[in-house]
This record gives sequence, structure tokens and C-alpha cells, in this order.
Amino acid sequence: MLDAAVQYANSHRDSFLTELKEFLSIPSISALPDHQLDIQRTARWLVDQFTAIGLRHAKVNPTNGHPVVTAEWLEAGTGKPTVLIYGHYDVQPVDPLELWHSDPFKAEVRDNYLYARGSSDDKGQTFIHAKVLESFLKTSGKLPVNVKLIIEGEEEIGGPSLDPFIEQHQDQLKADVAVISDTHMLRPDLPCLVYALRGLCYLQVEVSGPARDLHSGQYGGAIYNPLQALCEMLASLKDRNGRITVPGFYDKVVPISKAEHQLLVRSPFSETEFMQDAGVKGVWGESGYTTKEQVTARPTLEINGLWGGFTGEGPKTVLPAKAYAKISCRLVANQDHVEIAELLQAHLKKIAPPQVTVEVKRLHGGHGALINLDSKYMRAAGKVLQEVFGNAPVYEREGGSIPVVATFQKVLGIDSIMLGFGLPDDGLHSPNERFYLPNFYNGIEATIRYLDEIGK
Amino acid sequence: MLDAAVQYANSHRDSFLTELKEFLSIPSISALPDHQLDIQRTARWLVDQFTAIGLRHAKVNPTNGHPVVTAEWLEAGTGKPTVLIYGHYDVQPVDPLELWHSDPFKAEVRDNYLYARGSSDDKGQTFIHAKVLESFLKTSGKLPVNVKLIIEGEEEIGGPSLDPFIEQHQDQLKADVAVISDTHMLRPDLPCLVYALRGLCYLQVEVSGPARDLHSGQYGGAIYNPLQALCEMLASLKDRNGRITVPGFYDKVVPISKAEHQLLVRSPFSETEFMQDAGVKGVWGESGYTTKEQVTARPTLEINGLWGGFTGEGPKTVLPAKAYAKISCRLVANQDHVEIAELLQAHLKKIAPPQVTVEVKRLHGGHGALINLDSKYMRAAGKVLQEVFGNAPVYEREGGSIPVVATFQKVLGIDSIMLGFGLPDDGLHSPNERFYLPNFYNGIEATIRYLDEIGK
Repeated sequence: MLDAAVQYANSHRDSFLTELKEFLSIPSISALPDHQLDIQRTARWLVDQFTAIGLRHAKVNPTNGHPVVTAEWLEAGTGKPTVLIYGHYDVQPVDPLELWHSDPFKAEVRDNYLYARGSSDDKGQTFIHAKVLESFLKTSGKLPVNVKLIIEGEEEIGGPSLDPFIEQHQDQLKADVAVISDTHMLRPDLPCLVYALRGLCYLQVEVSGPARDLHSGQYGGAIYNPLQALCEMLASLKDRNGRITVPGFYDKVVPISKAEHQLLVRSPFSETEFMQDAGVKGVWGESGYTTKEQVTARPTLEINGLWGGFTGEGPKTVLPAKAYAKISCRLVANQDHVEIAELLQAHLKKIAPPQVTVEVKRLHGGHGALINLDSKYMRAAGKVLQEVFGNAPVYEREGGSIPVVATFQKVLGIDSIMLGFGLPDDGLHSPNERFYLPNFYNGIEATIRYLDEIGK
Repeated sequence: MLDAAVQYANSHRDSFLTELKEFLSIPSISALPDHQLDIQRTARWLVDQFTAIGLRHAKVNPTNGHPVVTAEWLEAGTGKPTVLIYGHYDVQPVDPLELWHSDPFKAEVRDNYLYARGSSDDKGQTFIHAKVLESFLKTSGKLPVNVKLIIEGEEEIGGPSLDPFIEQHQDQLKADVAVISDTHMLRPDLPCLVYALRGLCYLQVEVSGPARDLHSGQYGGAIYNPLQALCEMLASLKDRNGRITVPGFYDKVVPISKAEHQLLVRSPFSETEFMQDAGVKGVWGESGYTTKEQVTARPTLEINGLWGGFTGEGPKTVLPAKAYAKISCRLVANQDHVEIAELLQAHLKKIAPPQVTVEVKRLHGGHGALINLDSKYMRAAGKVLQEVFGNAPVYEREGGSIPVVATFQKVLGIDSIMLGFGLPDDGLHSPNERFYLPNFYNGIEATIRYLDEIGK
């Protein structure tokens, strides 16, 4: 059963790639209202795909936001575990478009990489699971475990629909473990198992000054410019040591233990490569922590966007009425994203000059998570990754957020095994996002072996 | 001759308004490359207008930028002064378009105001002069003075074409005095003669960090975010007392004398009205100066635009590669805009964190100016403004910049008389720019009387 599935996968690489290109061609950008129809098209495409490979009850579940796609196959027999496979079919916006070397929605292979928005995050990795299940079902007519699939369309916008959906469908989604492919390996030959994720608190700040845009010659010098107020407020959110100044921000942060510090120091991480990859002259962050710790085990605050006034070509002597910023914090275990949002909102209002008005909107929030390293599902993952990639996986904290991991823990009581097949330089959320094709094919084989292993 | 011209002007108000609406309908936005053809159309429209009213040699003069329109009428006879009439036919961009209550390029009269981009600044005020000359030429066949007209198309972008044009055409432009209508009165019954203008130094700042946009979860916490660097840099340009911190910035500023402080304190200015007009909760500026002084007699630094990262709807967890700002300083007499630009450029580079790179581009520069209050041309202006509007004019420093006033002083050796007919709440550079129609008609009469007076 295992060998037949692996053989099927190896002999169908071309058709798998062709199908993945089709999946990637639908611009399912969840953040942009113009792409609502594409979101619907993508969800239906997935239902057709799941039905074609032999899954049962594949359907588009409407929500108040973007639909959730579900499917299942529960005929593995008594004693077999049930695996809940999670992925997301939505993608990030593509701007700045002019920096892409090929159309983000016409996937193109160059030098063994597949270039397209969503190729790695997360359509490409989600598609691995479809091909894994197909490889079993088209050869043996069955799977070694029961599976349930839940593929959402709001991951990139931290949409509010998934958590209530999971809560409302607890029985339908009941499983022994979740499997998620939305993380990355360290190198093509070095797999990685993420055991901790950061949470996220994403806010939009609006600073209002004058009632209308003013002429900077007639009013400049006597008005608190909202752009200046916003710059001052944002600049004050970190001190010279890179420490976030919002009172209470660090109160619930679990300190990095000496043991974990040693583990993190030993994990393969090159600051030089990190700098080269990011293309920066130097690193900068919270004093007293290594770069690795700064991007995984410590909470952060970043400005994600900032705008106001005249941003076109040439000079315009305007003193704008409004200034806007998007800011977000990565949170670590025990920090509550709602509490942090409240602290930030209160602090921003408190530090605003009295001449302006500040409004803060919450755009997204998610808790962090910690996974048990010693379960049978985690051990099986370590085993098959070593078999397929030749090296034992590194166990890592991940800097990014996969909020559903916290939800699965809280609502369904299950851990998530993060079988990630991306690479650190895939360019997630950036122009020229790509997926390393050998990882696509090896990811399929590793996941075939994983389902077989946990079904034994 | 005077009475016939005044009568003609009064009986042609409707046709003057119709023609002005046509002039305003061409979207001559100098800052936007998409409007190049509209700029050309507007220049040709003016040539047709000047020819139709009886001026000689009306022509579109090409430059490296937007064309300069010239015309003349030099048959007033010996002993009559020559007046150089300056105006500009270009206008500011119209964004945010959604805040306009009517199409910015379909002029609409509501409650005695004409609403359109350029209605006050400066197409409407420039058009006054065409109608003044028409009123003389269509009734007496001649003018009381010689006139030369120079109407440019780059005022709103501080374009580089006008100064060289004036230098190259010194002989052709030789005159005894310049007249400019591009300023405003204090109230519909209270005229104002501006005797000082501020200069301008307009820069664009680009801060570059990582080589590409990064995922804020993977890199956030260890990278100097260019938006954060820019906020910190801009926030540091003013201290708590509203004083600009750039070393050397104030070195050449002429202090406000006790006498002028008394003059400025006596000039009609209501801080309450200023706040109401701007729609702010409070004023804020350089300590130790009145609001009036802050907006006219002191140099300023304002952020005119700021952008970077994700500015669309929803959350996007990006750590951007670049951050941009447009900043400008209003300068007072003796401050050299080139020197100030150099000081700012050097200071911005000096205060930038070492992890980022800063580039500063100069987008615009112009010197300030001071006008002799005691010339026959200034006295005549005071006399006719009082006759037409019922009150003696207030003599004011103006917060804005009309760089050509400094150029006329330097290159042609002549003062400019600023017969301004706008009002403080015309909304220059803002949505719903408007021109108070009684000022349009009274402006025509006042200027008819002015040319008659200085031709005596």
C-alpha cells in the first residue's frame, strides 16, 4: 500500500505540477474585496479536486467571511487514528507588482523553483496533501488513517470566520491530531519541526488633526501635523535598546530558560546568511537576545504600513488632515492578543498630543502555541522526515503565526504536527514568491510515509 | 476711459463667468504626468484668450518643462509705465477626490462661491487681468499703461523652467513693476497687501532597509524597519518646543523686530477663527511666537506626505524594504533654500541608523522676499483697494511662497505688487477649492482702477 502510493506519486509528478499551476492561477487574495469572486472560485476548485481524488462530502461551507472547504474519508477501520489536515487557499496581495519577474498568477518554473503567489504559502503546501491522498486512493482504494480536511480562505487576513466554524463543528472535526504544512525547512536536506508559534496582534492607527487638508504655507508652523504626531508616537514605541515601551507589554512573557537558550544557540542559524537573505547592512533588535531569539522567542512590534498626505509624484505643499499606520506585534506563549491590543490602544491614546485625535482598530489577533515534543505523532514525524530528507529534523520555534494551532489546542484538544516543506528564502508575502519543486515532491513522499507510519 | 472700462466690466459679468468656467474645465495639474496634454491645451487656450481681447504677440513659449504663455500691449505712449502681469495656469492635484461635493473641473456656483480646482489658485485670479485688459481695449481701444503678461504652468510644482526663461528674456520682460494676483484678502471687505513672502525648500526622503519586502513574522524583531527609522528621524526634527533641530537651520533668520511684532499683533487675526477654519482642537508651534508669527514670519518644517509598506485594506504582515517622506520648509528672508536643503540632507543622513540607507532628493526650492512699502506702485494699490472695498488694506507677511517675486527682484530689479482677491477659506490645495464671486468682480474693478491710477 505504501510502496504503490509512493510509486504513483513519483510517476505523476508532471500532472501534479500542471494541476498545481492551475490552482495557483486563481488570484485568491483574501485582503482585497475585488477578489471576492476569485476566493469563491478557488473554494469550488478545491471541492472539485477533493471529489475527483475520491474524498467524501467535499463541500464549500459559507461563513460570514470567506468560505471554509471541508472533505473527509473515514473508512480506515477501527483503531486507526483520525488526522485533521489544515491548509489555507487564500494568498497575500502581490504589490509591488513591478518587482515580479513573472506574472504572480501564471506559475513559472525557473531553475527548479515554481514562481507564483501562493506557491509556498500555502496553496503549494496544501496541495501536497491532496496528492498524498490521491496516491493512496488511486492505488489501494483506501487510506491508512481516517482523514478530515479543513481548508480556509482567511488565513492571510486573520479572518474571524474560522474560529467560530471550528467551534460550531467540533464533532464533525473531532480528530486525534492535526497536520499542517505551512512552515519551512532550514535547507533542502534539513527538515524542521516547529514546536512553538508566535501569536499576532494587528492594529490600524488613524491620527486626525485638521478637519481638511491644509495649505502648508498658510497653516504650517501652527498646527500639529498628524503625520508628525504619528511619527513621534510610533518612534516612541521602542527605546534605544529595541525594547517595546508599552506599559505591561512584557508582563506575561515566559522568559527563555537557560536550557532553551542553549538549544536555540545550537540550532543551525547563520547571522551572515540571515543578513544576506534579508539584504540588510546589519541586524538590530532587542538588546540581550540573539537574532534567532529575537525572531522566534521574543515578542516584537513592527510598522507594517504607514501613509498620509501627498504620495504622488512631485511636490505638493499640503498639511494633511489624517495619518494612518498599520502596526503588529508578534506575541509569545502566555501573551494574550486581546490584552496586548488593549494595552496598545490605551497607550497610543495616552501618548497622542492633545491637538490630534487617535482611533485604533483591531485588524487581526491570534494566540501563540507550544506543542508537546514527545507524542507518538511528533516522533513519527521526526522518523519519516529523516528517512526522506536524510537528516533528523531540527526542532524550532517559529517567528510567524499560525493561529489555528492555538484554536485546535483549545477547541479540539489536539496538537498540530507542522510538516513544513517551504524554504527560508521562498519570499513569502514578497514579490517572486517561490516553491522549491524537489520539496514539493519530497513533501508528498514524506507525508505518504507519515500517514502510513501513524496508521500502523 | 476709466468709467467706460468699469461699465463694460459690470455689464459683462455673466460672460466673464462663463469664460472662466471654460478656463477652469481644463485639468491643468502640473504635478501629474498624465495631464501633460491638458497643460498644453490650457496654454493654447490662454493664447486664444489674449489674442481675442486685443493683446499683441500672444504665444506659447516651449520650455524644458511646461510652457510659459506671454503677450503684450505696448502702445500706451511715452512716459507711461510698463506693468508686468504674472499668473499661473497650472493647478494642484485634486485627491482625495471623494471629498469634493462637485466635479473639480466642472465649476459650479453655490451661494456666491465658484467651486473648482484653480478657481482661486490661480486661474480665477489670473483671469481677472485678462478681463481688466479686455474692458479697456473693447471700450477705448487702448490701455492706460503698457503691459506685458507672463503666465506660467509650473508654479504648483516649483518647476525649474520659469527662472531661466525670465533670465533669457530679461529685455523682453523689462518693466517698472510687476502685478500678481495670487494672494488673499482677510475678509470680503478687508483687502490685504502682502509685503513679505516665505521661501520654500521641498525634499523627498527615501529610507532603504532590507533588499526586499520581508515577512514580519520571519524577520520582525531583528531588522531595522525603514518605516521605524523614518518615523524616528522625522520625529527628531522638532524638539518639545516646536523648534527645528537641524543644526544651522536658524542661523540666517532675521529676528522679528519689536516694531514688526507690534504691527503683527495689531493686524486683525483671530486665533479662534484660525482654529475653526483649520478644524483643529488646538494650535501648536514654535514656543515664544504668536500663531500669526508662526505662520508668516518664522520658518517651518512640515511633513507633506509619508508612505511605505502595506497601505491597502486589511492586515498584511510585511516588513517593508523602503519608506518615503515628502518634507518641506517654509523659509523667511535671508534663508537660502539651497543652503537649507544641504543642511537638511546632511542632517538626515547623519541621524539615520547605520542599518538603513537614506537618499534625499530636492523637489523644489524658492527664496523668500520683502517688498518696499513706500513706492508709488504700493501707494496706488492701497488707494484703489480702499476705494473699491471700503477699507484700507492691511499690510501683511504671507506664509506661503511665490518664488517669482524673488526672481523679479533679482533678475528684473522690480518689486511685485500683490493684488490678491482670494479669501482665507478658499480651500487652496484642498477639496472644494472655491472663489468668492464678488471678489472676482470687485477684483476686476480694482485692477482697472489700479492701471488707471498708475497710468496717470
